[in-house]
Amino acid sequence: MNKIISLTTDFGQLNGFVGVMKGVIWGIAPQAHIADITHDIPPQDVRLGAYALWRVVPFFPPGSVHIAVVDPGVGTHRRPIGLQIGAQFFIVPDNGLITPILEDGERSGQPTDIVHLCNPDYWLPDVSHTFHGRDIFAPTGAHLAHGVPLKALGDPIDDPIRLDFSQPKQTSQGWEAHITIIDVFGNLTTDLPAKAIAIAKQITFKLGGHTIQGLVKSYGHRETGELIALVDSENYVEISVVNGNAAKEIGAQIGDPVEVILHE
Amino acid sequence: MNKIISLTTDFGQLNGFVGVMKGVIWGIAPQAHIADITHDIPPQDVRLGAYALWRVVPFFPPGSVHIAVVDPGVGTHRRPIGLQIGAQFFIVPDNGLITPILEDGERSGQPTDIVHLCNPDYWLPDVSHTFHGRDIFAPTGAHLAHGVPLKALGDPIDDPIRLDFSQPKQTSQGWEAHITIIDVFGNLTTDLPAKAIAIAKQITFKLGGHTIQGLVKSYGHRETGELIALVDSENYVEISVVNGNAAKEIGAQIGDPVEVILHE
Amino acid sequence: MNKIISLTTDFGQLNGFVGVMKGVIWGIAPQAHIADITHDIPPQDVRLGAYALWRVVPFFPPGSVHIAVVDPGVGTHRRPIGLQIGAQFFIVPDNGLITPILEDGERSGQPTDIVHLCNPDYWLPDVSHTFHGRDIFAPTGAHLAHGVPLKALGDPIDDPIRLDFSQPKQTSQGWEAHITIIDVFGNLTTDLPAKAIAIAKQITFKLGGHTIQGLVKSYGHRETGELIALVDSENYVEISVVNGNAAKEIGAQIGDPVEVILHE
Repeated sequence: MNKIISLTTDFGQLNGFVGVMKGVIWGIAPQAHIADITHDIPPQDVRLGAYALWRVVPFFPPGSVHIAVVDPGVGTHRRPIGLQIGAQFFIVPDNGLITPILEDGERSGQPTDIVHLCNPDYWLPDVSHTFHGRDIFAPTGAHLAHGVPLKALGDPIDDPIRLDFSQPKQTSQGWEAHITIIDVFGNLTTDLPAKAIAIAKQITFKLGGHTIQGLVKSYGHRETGELIALVDSENYVEISVVNGNAAKEIGAQIGDPVEVILHE
Repeated sequence: MNKIISLTTDFGQLNGFVGVMKGVIWGIAPQAHIADITHDIPPQDVRLGAYALWRVVPFFPPGSVHIAVVDPGVGTHRRPIGLQIGAQFFIVPDNGLITPILEDGERSGQPTDIVHLCNPDYWLPDVSHTFHGRDIFAPTGAHLAHGVPLKALGDPIDDPIRLDFSQPKQTSQGWEAHITIIDVFGNLTTDLPAKAIAIAKQITFKLGGHTIQGLVKSYGHRETGELIALVDSENYVEISVVNGNAAKEIGAQIGDPVEVILHE
Repeated sequence: MNKIISLTTDFGQLNGFVGVMKGVIWGIAPQAHIADITHDIPPQDVRLGAYALWRVVPFFPPGSVHIAVVDPGVGTHRRPIGLQIGAQFFIVPDNGLITPILEDGERSGQPTDIVHLCNPDYWLPDVSHTFHGRDIFAPTGAHLAHGVPLKALGDPIDDPIRLDFSQPKQTSQGWEAHITIIDVFGNLTTDLPAKAIAIAKQITFKLGGHTIQGLVKSYGHRETGELIALVDSENYVEISVVNGNAAKEIGAQIGDPVEVILHE
């Protein structure tokens, strides 16, 4: 049994916080494969952590266990929670980090189970007040990957904390979308799913004084330096500069509005 | 047999130096799991490498092999050494990188064996003068994880190089502690173990013109922006700004003194 | 069967692009070990990606599968290709990323097979236009590691794109070499193989107004701050500052010429 565990944190690489979680995991689940999603979430930015996790989960095989720790409330009454959403499992602090995945699962009618991870049998023997990633999340996730059922890890709950994530708004001319993620290439992902504009014959995008006409298929279909709109790899509208950095070149930031005008 | 190997280096991620060590390791020990602790130790900073390794080792399962390479003396007469300290194994350059773990082991009476890794049967066939991480440390560590006994890797020694690490000093009022590690969140770890102040009824901490009254349990127990003292996840005193970066906000640096005043 | 897969990309660590490739790989080849070579290639810098891959491949065990994605042409007619060169396998975009390895293989007479990866049976069911790393390269590489023969992945070709990589030029006095790689320590690797200067009794190196007399064995054989020339761990001439950063201290850049004067 080679269960897969993914790790998403804001711990960075400098201090070994992630490495020690792997030591804990392999001590409990020696056959597990561990995939680092990212450890470079800006410190305590639950929202970006939520997006990062949400984008990658659909590509993991059924039965994967996703441990995500962006946890400003560590050591307080913030609950650690475990979830099964469809065929994927999650071990997270109860602070909204799971909201986009949970709500996608609900929209698509996937069965969902949630437990408060309150059974200390599956924690490390000594739990610090400041590093639950190592002391609660890693060992609990490892036990889950190693065959302990979710129900054994704690008590069922149905009131996980939910954060509001930006949604596109319909306008008289089309949509007001918003920039949700800026990737390492400076590409700007928006909250507008491609299907929302699938029937339009012509589309105009406006942001920060720039206007883009129409969608292109991929970066390589236009010249270097050109500002383009395209459908990204998760089927959302993305704004990009070919072989360049759109975020830097147009000064865009997360949350900025993108006006989308649909012509029939 | 899924032995665990941890890697701690100052190689960074850019040039593939770590990846090539993994290729070498898996060529020898195909079942090993490899946990990256950190590769972002500042170049040739043996002291920070030593702290990083020391913090994570206690959380690894017995029989783990820790390969650590921060090695300004590569290609000189600096010895490569292998150690068993309690149930953990180490493959390191003989430059003090192992000092804190070795001295903790001695203080707690753990049996220790040390060998000079001078048996070239367990090295790569061609050893470069500049990359012993790939040519000596990785293959020797992989053979150790794959079942070769430590004694076979070289000759016993009892004089490993030891570095002086900062120690808290007792004062008339309490302790003079020192900042030892600054983590990715800007938290300031000190060399003062929590047990040294366990009996005090009231405590005052002073550093860089700032005064902190008492210990709090965790970050979430005070307001954002407040400067606090708490016990970190390795049971040492830590100075922190809630949801902020203490190192930046008070301009603290490694080695800075922290005055600790105990009131009975 | 614990096949090894290496990953080399320009994706960075921030956005989870690498993590999702691992999810895809382990869904297909659950026993594979995955070694990250580097994900910090500057965006779309095919040349640096090619060097990074070329340096590490010889140290991987036979049968390893190397997936490398530095891919400015994603979504265009740029072909994805698979190669067997000697006992190593490669899954790359056809843009020159494989050139140095391919040409080394040809020079040493290794058998080479190349296929255009045009069989969609081994891709993900839905292929995006912007993330072939996840949708084509990762699953195809995983199937190859899991036992599917290279020939089944597509049609044979013999015209992969080749890039020109810098070569040292013979001069009346010796060689004009060029800086090819700057590593994380600021060391400057050149394109001059050590064997080209093996017979010289005395050597002088000149770059950027600096003169270096002779080769030293390793960094530790000279004083801190001294500018030295030595043979690097891949047997090429390297320029370095002992315990310092040569690139910063002499302002060297990739492509800069190094004059090499051989005295009989």
